[in-house]
Amino acid sequence: MTDYKKILESLPEAVAPYLGQGKKADYIPALASVPADKFGMALSTADGCDYVVGDANEGFSIQSISKVFTLSLAMHYAGEKVFERVGVEPSGNPFNSLLQLEHERGVPRNPFINAGALVITDVLLSCLRSPRNDFLDFVRTLSGNMDIHYDEQVFHSEYDNCHRNAALANYLKSFNNLEHSVSEVLDFYFYQCSLKMSCQDIARASRFLATDGKHPFRDERVVSPLQARRINTLMMTCGTYDEAGEFAFHVGLPCKSGVGGGIVATIPGEMSICVWSPELGKKGNSLPGMHALKAFVEKTDLAVF
Amino acid sequence: MTDYKKILESLPEAVAPYLGQGKKADYIPALASVPADKFGMALSTADGCDYVVGDANEGFSIQSISKVFTLSLAMHYAGEKVFERVGVEPSGNPFNSLLQLEHERGVPRNPFINAGALVITDVLLSCLRSPRNDFLDFVRTLSGNMDIHYDEQVFHSEYDNCHRNAALANYLKSFNNLEHSVSEVLDFYFYQCSLKMSCQDIARASRFLATDGKHPFRDERVVSPLQARRINTLMMTCGTYDEAGEFAFHVGLPCKSGVGGGIVATIPGEMSICVWSPELGKKGNSLPGMHALKAFVEKTDLAVF
Amino acid sequence: MTDYKKILESLPEAVAPYLGQGKKADYIPALASVPADKFGMALSTADGCDYVVGDANEGFSIQSISKVFTLSLAMHYAGEKVFERVGVEPSGNPFNSLLQLEHERGVPRNPFINAGALVITDVLLSCLRSPRNDFLDFVRTLSGNMDIHYDEQVFHSEYDNCHRNAALANYLKSFNNLEHSVSEVLDFYFYQCSLKMSCQDIARASRFLATDGKHPFRDERVVSPLQARRINTLMMTCGTYDEAGEFAFHVGLPCKSGVGGGIVATIPGEMSICVWSPELGKKGNSLPGMHALKAFVEKTDLAVF
Amino acid sequence: MTDYKKILESLPEAVAPYLGQGKKADYIPALASVPADKFGMALSTADGCDYVVGDANEGFSIQSISKVFTLSLAMHYAGEKVFERVGVEPSGNPFNSLLQLEHERGVPRNPFINAGALVITDVLLSCLRSPRNDFLDFVRTLSGNMDIHYDEQVFHSEYDNCHRNAALANYLKSFNNLEHSVSEVLDFYFYQCSLKMSCQDIARASRFLATDGKHPFRDERVVSPLQARRINTLMMTCGTYDEAGEFAFHVGLPCKSGVGGGIVATIPGEMSICVWSPELGKKGNSLPGMHALKAFVEKTDLAVF
Repeated sequence: MTDYKKILESLPEAVAPYLGQGKKADYIPALASVPADKFGMALSTADGCDYVVGDANEGFSIQSISKVFTLSLAMHYAGEKVFERVGVEPSGNPFNSLLQLEHERGVPRNPFINAGALVITDVLLSCLRSPRNDFLDFVRTLSGNMDIHYDEQVFHSEYDNCHRNAALANYLKSFNNLEHSVSEVLDFYFYQCSLKMSCQDIARASRFLATDGKHPFRDERVVSPLQARRINTLMMTCGTYDEAGEFAFHVGLPCKSGVGGGIVATIPGEMSICVWSPELGKKGNSLPGMHALKAFVEKTDLAVF
Repeated sequence: MTDYKKILESLPEAVAPYLGQGKKADYIPALASVPADKFGMALSTADGCDYVVGDANEGFSIQSISKVFTLSLAMHYAGEKVFERVGVEPSGNPFNSLLQLEHERGVPRNPFINAGALVITDVLLSCLRSPRNDFLDFVRTLSGNMDIHYDEQVFHSEYDNCHRNAALANYLKSFNNLEHSVSEVLDFYFYQCSLKMSCQDIARASRFLATDGKHPFRDERVVSPLQARRINTLMMTCGTYDEAGEFAFHVGLPCKSGVGGGIVATIPGEMSICVWSPELGKKGNSLPGMHALKAFVEKTDLAVF
Repeated sequence: MTDYKKILESLPEAVAPYLGQGKKADYIPALASVPADKFGMALSTADGCDYVVGDANEGFSIQSISKVFTLSLAMHYAGEKVFERVGVEPSGNPFNSLLQLEHERGVPRNPFINAGALVITDVLLSCLRSPRNDFLDFVRTLSGNMDIHYDEQVFHSEYDNCHRNAALANYLKSFNNLEHSVSEVLDFYFYQCSLKMSCQDIARASRFLATDGKHPFRDERVVSPLQARRINTLMMTCGTYDEAGEFAFHVGLPCKSGVGGGIVATIPGEMSICVWSPELGKKGNSLPGMHALKAFVEKTDLAVF
Repeated sequence: MTDYKKILESLPEAVAPYLGQGKKADYIPALASVPADKFGMALSTADGCDYVVGDANEGFSIQSISKVFTLSLAMHYAGEKVFERVGVEPSGNPFNSLLQLEHERGVPRNPFINAGALVITDVLLSCLRSPRNDFLDFVRTLSGNMDIHYDEQVFHSEYDNCHRNAALANYLKSFNNLEHSVSEVLDFYFYQCSLKMSCQDIARASRFLATDGKHPFRDERVVSPLQARRINTLMMTCGTYDEAGEFAFHVGLPCKSGVGGGIVATIPGEMSICVWSPELGKKGNSLPGMHALKAFVEKTDLAVF
């Protein structure tokens, strides 16, 4: 049997050369102030075991990793209908490009670019009775951690830097692809992004993607097996911005990254993984994180291809 | 001497074949409810004479014609500095395109596309003590009509259809090309667009563009001779959306149109003109209005070329 | 053990509802004249077994499936250096778009869009002594069929419809991303596209992608294990034009399609597959072919995710 | 009466500060080898007088100035029909952009961007019996100089740098907007661009644009008065690449520039002008040439506005 603990413990050394090579997100103070040399990783296996290394229990800003949870929850409620309002194709453009949105008449290419996540947020606003609470509850229950909260400072910083997202939301609205008001959608969207979770929280909370949609702690499904597969597929093809091709090759796993330096990954049937290290490469994905995943896949031989 | 009165009176017949060929703007109720067959035209000559025909004294929604007045007022206060934040080149794209804005890093191509007019609005917010009142006062004084008001119904309708403009404003803000808040800029912008003026009001109010910038009723300059020339040049090259080339050829005058069906035109040294008829051609300019201007130019031989 | 023969034989019935739903490529006579109801499929397993059904031994125009073979051969000779001149990211635009090429200064997004394949063709012209013969020999040897030829009629038809590709090639040349003359590159490119092969030929010839790069009939490697993985990854993310996201989800296998109606697919470690049916869906991929692959994956449970 | 001779003679001093501020075109050796400090200007008045200063009788490569002559000749033969295949609107993009051509399905925005000039060249190939000779004869007769020739070295250099234009031509062909072969069109196009003419030749040859289309030396019309006006209008709005707005303001005359450093301008009813100085500004127009025109207009008060 593979000794995951030992492999995990070898990773800090493996990624050491990449520390200092990237650049932290600095557009909001709360991200800029995180120590650059943080590194943590957590596994949550399909059969319920957890493995951690480094700063895996320290909370960080999940940012775009939230898009995995919002998409899952939206599909839970609205099923495949969400794909009438958002596509499933890679974007070929930076994650917040308005150009493509104009070209495609207000239908975002996929749910992991910001425009697509705003549409998914709008879907959730129609499905949830108490959006913030229900979403928080969803993530808490999945991770088995009732102490997950949103970071109020991050939330307010998002507002101070909201104009690109506000442009996207208004643009979607002008194409009638938002049902709720722009401010409701943005408010809930920023809330999602400002959740603070640890690697262990995220690994546990996304374990259902490795188990055909089964809830990690309850005898129910978060999403159907087919939906889990669709989400994993989207992570594979669209989860890492304009670097999805490189990720698919070097890591070979469905991944979703956030500018807070976190990356969540799935090995279908085996486990979910979350790695965190704040320094980003040129395309906005954690550089040490990517190399940790790459090393892990090589050492475990668990790549999809 | 040219008999302007007689020529004006021949125009309703000249444009009759074009009535019913275009399509009224219908995105807001106040525009959709205007009778389609309205037609009016007014001249205001450099030496102070007025000539009118048809519905020239009926107020209509000036919409983008306001961009001539806001640009003039902004140049009055801020001079050539406004062109550090907005270009002077034709756009080659529909008037509210985000694509070009992305390509050019948040600097709108010219002050007559919506993005450019939003920047000019932002400039004015910095120059005016009481923006709404000061702007209204400016237009009233120029036209010598203290009864000009904004149309509250139109103003509220603009808000209901604000999302494309809100996207533009947020996008400009994300490139740091707005100093004021998005909502302040939009509020003032919609206010300008919802002014209700007659052909005669507009012709008089723009007479300074035909007189090297001289105020029509006061012994002062609205703008310098060079600024008047720049504004006329911009009207010639950018004043009629994506149809500026056709206008320059068929009409041969600096023009600025609005979706309310009005077009203001300048014959430098001679007169200013305003024509109004609600039905628009495919590119958003009044179809009978364009043909009235064309016929007028042919009959008076006053084209620029 | 899975009874592949039986599963294959069930496919014609499974795809029957999709016959007549698509549209044959008709831009060249040789493609337009192929009977629309053709359907064939072939498997070539990692351990050397072949399974076929329907018209699997009838030759058809491989068209863009050739891009898999040219990329493999280019990587065989030039290794990872080819990725200095062509990217590995999905394109997000139709396969022959010049727009993206302009935006990215002459570096095609990936080797499977036409622009990228032209660059790969240029690489091969530098590596091969006798390009046409060497390439034909490569494909013949891989498939174990010395009777593979190019279709002269198709070749000449490609020339008659060459202008979009000629525009791409000239554009690449203007960015100095072609070393050879435009006419040499186009000539060799059209030659590759006009090869005529059967499903069985193609399945065999691509078996190395399922076997870590091992040559099917010789004790050598076509490409390294890592290169095989890279090619499979690129097929997964970029192999089916602007429909790669849908393919990744519905089929879940690395695929490369051609407008002749063929699709080649890899199940790493297990087998290579080729399916052929001429009617294309809206994005240019064989519609019955896609559904055959989908049904096969479902019945064998061999999807990557 | 204005003393044109005196004004002309004051210009070298007026433009002196701008010499050394621009950058010669260096993409072909024949342009790169021209001394940077050349400056010449010629007027050809409507009543048949010529005025020259500096290097006004030295031949230079007319490059895109040829587009004025080809458009005029095409309109002479084909009339307004040419505008079914090419637009009349400013482009808002660099002169050789493929992007806009893709967006507008193969119809170039205007006849002065390269794509549009290629279409005009194709029109001429249908109208002229012996294209090269007929065109040369046209220009010679207009300028009254039978010694005008094409520069063979320039012509061959154009071929060596043809790929951007070849991409445009192939792209136009793929949209069926060329009737002749790409190579015929390019060959004739490069021929036109490589004509060598002096300021005096060009001023005389374009005098018809200032005289409602009248041939300068014959009792016939080159184009109709309306066509002359259309050509002047196009020069005003589209004649100086992406700087037409600035030119319209600072110079205020219909202009067409070439990368050889020449600019031809029209003052309708008054005269045609040609200025030449090799150093180009950032947008590809002669910097001293632009300032010479600006100074001339200021001193003569002959601007259009």
